[in-house]
Amino acid sequence: MERYEALQIVEKQLTEKRYTHTLGVAETAIRLAEKYGADVKKAELAAIFHDYAKFRKKEEMRQILIDEQMDKRLLQFHHELWHAPVGAFLVQKEAGITDEVILSAIRWHTTGRPNMTTLEKIVYLADYIEPGRRFPGVDEVRQIAAQSLNKAVLAAVKNSIMFLMSKQQPVFPVTLDTYNDYIQNGEDV
Amino acid sequence: MERYEALQIVEKQLTEKRYTHTLGVAETAIRLAEKYGADVKKAELAAIFHDYAKFRKKEEMRQILIDEQMDKRLLQFHHELWHAPVGAFLVQKEAGITDEVILSAIRWHTTGRPNMTTLEKIVYLADYIEPGRRFPGVDEVRQIAAQSLNKAVLAAVKNSIMFLMSKQQPVFPVTLDTYNDYIQNGEDV
Repeated sequence: MERYEALQIVEKQLTEKRYTHTLGVAETAIRLAEKYGADVKKAELAAIFHDYAKFRKKEEMRQILIDEQMDKRLLQFHHELWHAPVGAFLVQKEAGITDEVILSAIRWHTTGRPNMTTLEKIVYLADYIEPGRRFPGVDEVRQIAAQSLNKAVLAAVKNSIMFLMSKQQPVFPVTLDTYNDYIQNGEDV
Repeated sequence: MERYEALQIVEKQLTEKRYTHTLGVAETAIRLAEKYGADVKKAELAAIFHDYAKFRKKEEMRQILIDEQMDKRLLQFHHELWHAPVGAFLVQKEAGITDEVILSAIRWHTTGRPNMTTLEKIVYLADYIEPGRRFPGVDEVRQIAAQSLNKAVLAAVKNSIMFLMSKQQPVFPVTLDTYNDYIQNGEDV
């Protein structure tokens, strides 16, 4: 699928603000894919579709989580986490994207997971550092992203967990698993 | 078992420094049990025996973890975490403590766990705040412990996770589960 067609599909699903964010994620993902030797077209498509399900109704997402036998633990956590796995499902069903490399980058863009693929890392990180993002620590992660994809993903995962804990918010276990995976098995971290 | 007998058994297992720590944990556990309505004798015994296996050889502990089919994930984490479940096993086998309320407080004193018993909370917290402890945040947890057992355990769990992450150390998943349990189901937190 070409960029223009993908953007047309996605624009209908998003608010203007979230569409602008998506364009930022796409540009960042392209840049990271060029730098770290990933497939640039796949990075772009995964980024364009990453928030496809962001504004689906909570009840629709819950039903898909149940029907598709996704990780049961998600139901105990905030529905903010649901749009990523549900998005991977809907992008396949409704937009006809079947490339598992792209779908998995959409599926894991919010929580991360142990042993991430390069494209999963790129979309996770691009979502975190795209130019529109403003929050404590983001500039440091941008700087690390210029040096090492793995170090930048680890920094983003760690910041996310510590931010949630500082706000007394729950942390999805798979995100801690991602952190531990980097610490215990981290490639060039 | 009386205090004197328990101390005699434990003293042989520990260094002088760790024995002094144990006495601090016992005094703190007694105080917390009085304040929060737990069985004072059980709190004292659990505290006296909490580090019983602290100086067992790594290979002996690993074998017990495997033979007794304890949580397999422990083997992937630092052996500092092993002395608690191994201690609960050895205290039963070697010192004849059979009270599951006491054994579980020993078993979970390092990682915590979701849905802790009051005695588990007391020994976990006493180990964290006993008078000999000196580390960032311990005084704040001591102050919280004077107000609320649950809030103090949550603060200790949270500090522990954030301290480990600040040092790029792995975090055992059950400790995050403990944090999430308090945040999502926390009684009077």
